Amino acid sequence: MARLHLGNINPHIVEAKYAVRGELAVKSEEYRARLRNGDKSLPFAEVISANIGNPQQLDQKPITFFRQVLSLLENPKLLEHEDVLLNSLGYKTDVLERAKWLLHHAGSVGAYSASAGVPAIKESVAKFLEKRDGFAADPARIYLSAGASSGVNTLLHVICASPTTGILVPIPQYPLYTASLSVLNSTCVPYYLDESAQWGTSLETIKEAHSKAKSEGIDVRAIVIINPGNPTGASLSEADIRSVLDFAAQEKLVVMADEVYQTNVFIGKFHSFRQVLLGLQKQYPGKYDEVELASLHSVSKGMVGECGHRGGYFDLHGFKPEVEEQIYKFVSITLCAPVIGQCLVELMVNPPQPGDPSYELYDKEFSGIFNSLKTRAYALYEAFKEMEGVECGEPQGSMYLFPTIHVPAKAAEAAKKEGRTPDEFYCMRLLEATGVCVVPGSGFGQAEGTLHFRTTFLAPGTAWVGSIKKFHKEFMDQYR
Amino acid sequence: MARLHLGNINPHIVEAKYAVRGELAVKSEEYRARLRNGDKSLPFAEVISANIGNPQQLDQKPITFFRQVLSLLENPKLLEHEDVLLNSLGYKTDVLERAKWLLHHAGSVGAYSASAGVPAIKESVAKFLEKRDGFAADPARIYLSAGASSGVNTLLHVICASPTTGILVPIPQYPLYTASLSVLNSTCVPYYLDESAQWGTSLETIKEAHSKAKSEGIDVRAIVIINPGNPTGASLSEADIRSVLDFAAQEKLVVMADEVYQTNVFIGKFHSFRQVLLGLQKQYPGKYDEVELASLHSVSKGMVGECGHRGGYFDLHGFKPEVEEQIYKFVSITLCAPVIGQCLVELMVNPPQPGDPSYELYDKEFSGIFNSLKTRAYALYEAFKEMEGVECGEPQGSMYLFPTIHVPAKAAEAAKKEGRTPDEFYCMRLLEATGVCVVPGSGFGQAEGTLHFRTTFLAPGTAWVGSIKKFHKEFMDQYR
Repeated sequence: MARLHLGNINPHIVEAKYAVRGELAVKSEEYRARLRNGDKSLPFAEVISANIGNPQQLDQKPITFFRQVLSLLENPKLLEHEDVLLNSLGYKTDVLERAKWLLHHAGSVGAYSASAGVPAIKESVAKFLEKRDGFAADPARIYLSAGASSGVNTLLHVICASPTTGILVPIPQYPLYTASLSVLNSTCVPYYLDESAQWGTSLETIKEAHSKAKSEGIDVRAIVIINPGNPTGASLSEADIRSVLDFAAQEKLVVMADEVYQTNVFIGKFHSFRQVLLGLQKQYPGKYDEVELASLHSVSKGMVGECGHRGGYFDLHGFKPEVEEQIYKFVSITLCAPVIGQCLVELMVNPPQPGDPSYELYDKEFSGIFNSLKTRAYALYEAFKEMEGVECGEPQGSMYLFPTIHVPAKAAEAAKKEGRTPDEFYCMRLLEATGVCVVPGSGFGQAEGTLHFRTTFLAPGTAWVGSIKKFHKEFMDQYR
Repeated sequence: MARLHLGNINPHIVEAKYAVRGELAVKSEEYRARLRNGDKSLPFAEVISANIGNPQQLDQKPITFFRQVLSLLENPKLLEHEDVLLNSLGYKTDVLERAKWLLHHAGSVGAYSASAGVPAIKESVAKFLEKRDGFAADPARIYLSAGASSGVNTLLHVICASPTTGILVPIPQYPLYTASLSVLNSTCVPYYLDESAQWGTSLETIKEAHSKAKSEGIDVRAIVIINPGNPTGASLSEADIRSVLDFAAQEKLVVMADEVYQTNVFIGKFHSFRQVLLGLQKQYPGKYDEVELASLHSVSKGMVGECGHRGGYFDLHGFKPEVEEQIYKFVSITLCAPVIGQCLVELMVNPPQPGDPSYELYDKEFSGIFNSLKTRAYALYEAFKEMEGVECGEPQGSMYLFPTIHVPAKAAEAAKKEGRTPDEFYCMRLLEATGVCVVPGSGFGQAEGTLHFRTTFLAPGTAWVGSIKKFHKEFMDQYR
C-alpha cells in the first residue's frame, strides 16, 4: 500500500477542474504521436490544437526584433562581433543597443533578479501604462510575473483567507480562476455573462450573484473581469467597465482585471480598467478613491505570442502597503520570474518606434499577425453561420470564438451513456473524426441548458474549418 | 478604508517567514542603489550579496556551449548562416546540431510545451538518471519544473491535505520548506541536524521528532532531505541515506530528496537517494518496495548556475498513478515550465562528451568553476578558523558555509533593544559596516541557544573575506 492515494492527498487539488489540458488534450497528443510514428489508421493526417491559445505552436512566427535581442542576451559574447551581426546577420543597431541596455540593467539573464522583477523593466512598464492610459504609473507597484497565470496565483493566494472568502468570477471563464479557487479552498461566486449582448457584463446579474452569496454568509471581496474575454472573445465597452467600477466602489470589491488580450481587439478599442478608474477618480474626487485594482498582462498573447517564455506583470492601484509587503514576500518565496521572460516584457511594452532601424520590419510583422488573426476569425465565424444549430457572435477580440451548439436529443442520450456531457461528447467525436481539438463549454462553465465549445483561430489555412463543417453535418445527420 | 488589510488577508501568508530575501536583502539593495547613484557616504564601495546562491550575479560565467545553443533557440534564423556561425563567431558543429535537435523536439521556445515538459527532454533526463545511478528511469515519471522550488511547491501542494498533515523538515533548512508549509497551513515537523557530525542526519533525532509529532495527533507522511545541505553545506554519507530510507520504509514516509547541489561536492562523492533506494530494493526484495521517492534537481546551482532561467525537474518513484494524475493536473494549471529553462535542463543532463567539438572548452569552464568555488570555500573556512568565537566545519558541498558564532552578552542585550535576535543584529551590523550581506541562522532555524549565519562563497576575490574579519574583531571589541 502506497502512503499517498486519492483518498488522503489534498482534497482541494482533487476537486479542482482544468479541462483546457484535460482528457481531450491528452488524447489529441496521443494522436499526434501516432501520426508522427507513421500510423496510417487515423481518418486525418494532422492534429489541429485549437484547444489552447498557443500561437507559436501553430502558425504565428515570433517577432524578429524580439528574438534578435534575446539571442544576444543569451550569448552576450556575440556583441564582441558587431560587424558580423550588422553586416552578415541582418541585426540592426537598435537590436544591439537594446541588448546592451538590458544586459546593463538586468545583468546576466542566468542570475536571479530582484523578487518583483528587474527595476529598469518595471520602469519601462510604468512608462507604457502612462502612455496607454494617460495617467502616470509607479514602478514600485508593478510586479513582473511568470505569465499572467502566476500573477493570478499570487493575488488569489493573498486575497483568499478562508472557505467563506468569495470571489466573483465570470461564467464562462478561463478555468485558471475556478481551479485556483478550488486549490485555495475559497468560494467561487459565479456571475453569468450575457450571451445576448455579445457576452458583455450584466450589472443586474453581478448584483444578484453578489447578494445571493452575501446572504449565504460569503465574504465577497473581489471581482474578476477578463477583457477581452476568454473564452467568449468579448471586448467590453467603456460603459460596461464603468458600471463594474461603480459596483466595486459601492460594495468595496477588489477588481482583478485580466487584460492579457488587450491587443487582440477587432471591433472598437480596448479600454483598460486602470484608465477608466483613474479617469473616474479625476472626474469625481472622493467617490472612487478606495477602489483596489490589480491589472494583469502577459507576453503570451497578442502579436507577441511568447507563451513558452512565461513573462508577464501585474500592477496594483490602491492596495495598502502592508498588503503589498505580503505580496512581495509571497513572490520572494518563488524567487523571481524567468529573467528572459522579464526581458520580453520590456520588449513588448517598449517596441521599436517609427524611425528606429527595426521599426519597418516590426510593424510589418505585427500588422501581418493581426490581420491574419482577424481574417481567420472571420473565416471561422462565416463557417459557423452556415452550420445547422450553431450560433456565434461576430469576432470582437482575444483569440477565441465560443459558439452555441444545439445537438439533437439522440446525441444527448448517447453522451449520457458514455458518462459525458453533450458538449464533451460532441468535442470528442470531432477530435476522433477530424483531429481538431477544441474545448467543450462545460470546461469554462455555461448557463444551464446551453452548450458551447471554444476554439482558437490560430491554426493556419482553412482546411480544418472545412473539416469541422463536414463533421458537423455528419454528426447532425447521425443523431437527428 | 481599503478592502484588504493585514487583518483580513490570507493569515497563512502573513505567518510565512522567508528571510533569504527579507529585511537584510532589501537593505542591501538600497545600499547598492545608493552606490550606483554616486553616494559617497557609505563606509564601503561595493555590496557583496553573499545572502543568495546566485552565481551569475557574482563571478560565475555561464558555460559557453549552453549559451551558444540558447542563442540559436531564441533566434533560429541564425541557423540560415551556418558558415558565419562556424567561421566568424566560433560556434562549433555540435552547438548547431544540438540547437536543431531541440528545435525539432521542442518546437518554438515561444510555444507552451506539454504540461510536464518537452517529452524528448524528459527522455534525456531519464538517460542521465540511468547513467548516474545505474538503474533505468521512466521518462513518464519525470516532470520538468520552473526550478526545483516550483517542484517543491507542486509536491507539497499535493501531499499536504490538512493542518494535521506533518512533514519532517531538517533544521537548519532552506526556508522554502517552512514558508510553503505555512502557506499550505500544514505542520512542519522539525528534526535537527547534528552539527557535531558535520551537519549529518541523526536517526535518533528524526525518530524522536516523528514520535513526538505522532503523539500530538500529527499525520506525519513525508520527510524532506536536502543533500548536499542548504544552509549547512553537508554532504551525506551512503550510510546516512540508508538509515533515512530504512526509517521511511518502516514508517511509510514519502521521501523528498532535494538534490540541487549534487555537483557541488568537495569531499567524498554524491550519493543520490534514488541510487541508494533502487540498490536496496534490488538487494532486499520486498522490504523497500513501497517507498515513494521524489527527487529534485535544478539548473540553478552547480557549475550551470542558471538561476534566472528557472529550469529544473523532479522524478517520482513508487507513486500511485492516481496521485500522479493529480500532480499532472496541478502542473497543467500553471501551463508549463519556461521552455528555455527546459532546454537548459537538456544541456545540463547531456553536456558535450570527450571527442565532441565543444568538449574541451566545456570541460575547462566546468573545472574552472568547480576549482574556484572550492578555493573560495577554503579561503573563507580558513578566515573563520581565525575569528574569535567562530566555529565552522570543513567545506563539504553546496555553495554555503554556516559557521556558529558566539557573541558577547552585551551584544545580545543591544540586539534585544532593537527587537532583533543576536544573529540578526550581528548580520545587520556586518552589512552596515562592510556591505557584505549574509543571512542570520534564525532565517533557517537553529538549535536553541546557538547562533549562526549563512554565507555563500560565490563572491570574487578575498577582500570581502578580509572585511568580515576586520568587522568581526571590531564587533567583539565593542561588545566584549
